[in-house]
Amino acid sequence: MAEELKVFRTWSSRFALRIIWALKLKGIEEYETIFEDITNKSPLLLQYNPVHKKVPVLVHNGKPISESLVILEYIDETWKHNPLLPEDPYERATARFWAKFGDEKTCTDEIDKVSDLYIDCHFKVEWKEQEEAIPQVMENLKYIEEQLKGNKFFGGETIGYTDIAFGWTANLLSVFEEVTGMKLLDEEKFPLLSAWMQNFSDVPVIKENWPPRDKLVIKYQATREKYLAAAAAGGPK
Amino acid sequence: MAEELKVFRTWSSRFALRIIWALKLKGIEEYETIFEDITNKSPLLLQYNPVHKKVPVLVHNGKPISESLVILEYIDETWKHNPLLPEDPYERATARFWAKFGDEKTCTDEIDKVSDLYIDCHFKVEWKEQEEAIPQVMENLKYIEEQLKGNKFFGGETIGYTDIAFGWTANLLSVFEEVTGMKLLDEEKFPLLSAWMQNFSDVPVIKENWPPRDKLVIKYQATREKYLAAAAAGGPK
Repeated sequence: MAEELKVFRTWSSRFALRIIWALKLKGIEEYETIFEDITNKSPLLLQYNPVHKKVPVLVHNGKPISESLVILEYIDETWKHNPLLPEDPYERATARFWAKFGDEKTCTDEIDKVSDLYIDCHFKVEWKEQEEAIPQVMENLKYIEEQLKGNKFFGGETIGYTDIAFGWTANLLSVFEEVTGMKLLDEEKFPLLSAWMQNFSDVPVIKENWPPRDKLVIKYQATREKYLAAAAAGGPK
Repeated sequence: MAEELKVFRTWSSRFALRIIWALKLKGIEEYETIFEDITNKSPLLLQYNPVHKKVPVLVHNGKPISESLVILEYIDETWKHNPLLPEDPYERATARFWAKFGDEKTCTDEIDKVSDLYIDCHFKVEWKEQEEAIPQVMENLKYIEEQLKGNKFFGGETIGYTDIAFGWTANLLSVFEEVTGMKLLDEEKFPLLSAWMQNFSDVPVIKENWPPRDKLVIKYQATREKYLAAAAAGGPK
């Protein structure tokens, strides 16, 4: 019986991108992609993820799975070849810890999870929040840099779970830099992380599945405009 | 060689309690417990969990693991008998989804993660936030109630990962009710969840390892006083 496999995503969601990468790394090419418009979500998305109403959702033989890190584990446990997580329990715990760290470090009203600190730094440039955010980002980056000591990827010689979890930074940070004219990731201070970004981006499966850069620049230019307008109006609500 | 196993906890941490329960459910009795004072954390705790500086930390043969849900998975993968997670990948994903839901539903400045909504409801009673928090808690409880249809525990007939993740509610909600005089979990509206709380509390390993109720009441009376004082002073900062 042919398996039914569907991915609900948006063109730009960094969480959904994780699922695409994981499937491709597993060599799974046969799946249907449903592109959602987050301003007008489909009834199917709301049915499959009634709790969070968000992409990504993976539907496997009728069963929906939500939350990108949960989906990654599901993919890894369902298709066991080309493992994303290492075998050793301690290494697995380490991978989960850092993926969770990336996703939960901060929490804002505007944009939830992950990258918030990066995004704050880049886009809240006019507010005092930025002064507080930058040292925090630097501290976080230092922790992440340390994880790469002696390794090409977080997963060792090949990319795995943590690489996929942090993967969006390898693309989006340079978009943020282009849009805001601000450079956070200094190659001299973070040589391993800088090298990782290049190594990660060079993996064919990753490179071939980035959202179009010009569209991302336009998207984040709009974000920038919104923040600038809010700053001109006296800062965030 | 005897294994070295240490748990860094506080007397009341609901996250640390998960680790104690999991070890006991695995039949692991031989471990050292280090009780931390969160107002004066030990150098060892800071060394083992430099990123979050929080309990619980499990140290296994010199290797520290942090983040309670990550530790639960580590325990389950290291000692495979009496599994906490089910075998089926979809059921595992479901368990992880709900545990994550419980831990990440909200995010406030005061108290991070989990229970925040419950705590908001109980303690922010004087502020308008409470009006917003109650319907949200009810919605969350409805989702959780649904997961118990046809099951005694989230894990089926025996307690598992999700039960352990939600387990604190079976104890603390009644403490909150006693302290604030407010009842959120209506047995008629949530019969399955109410039954689950009783069933969960009745499991010997769970019952024997609750923090002392009188101390919890005193702790949350102090929390209540703090919120009342803040309300009298014109609400939260």
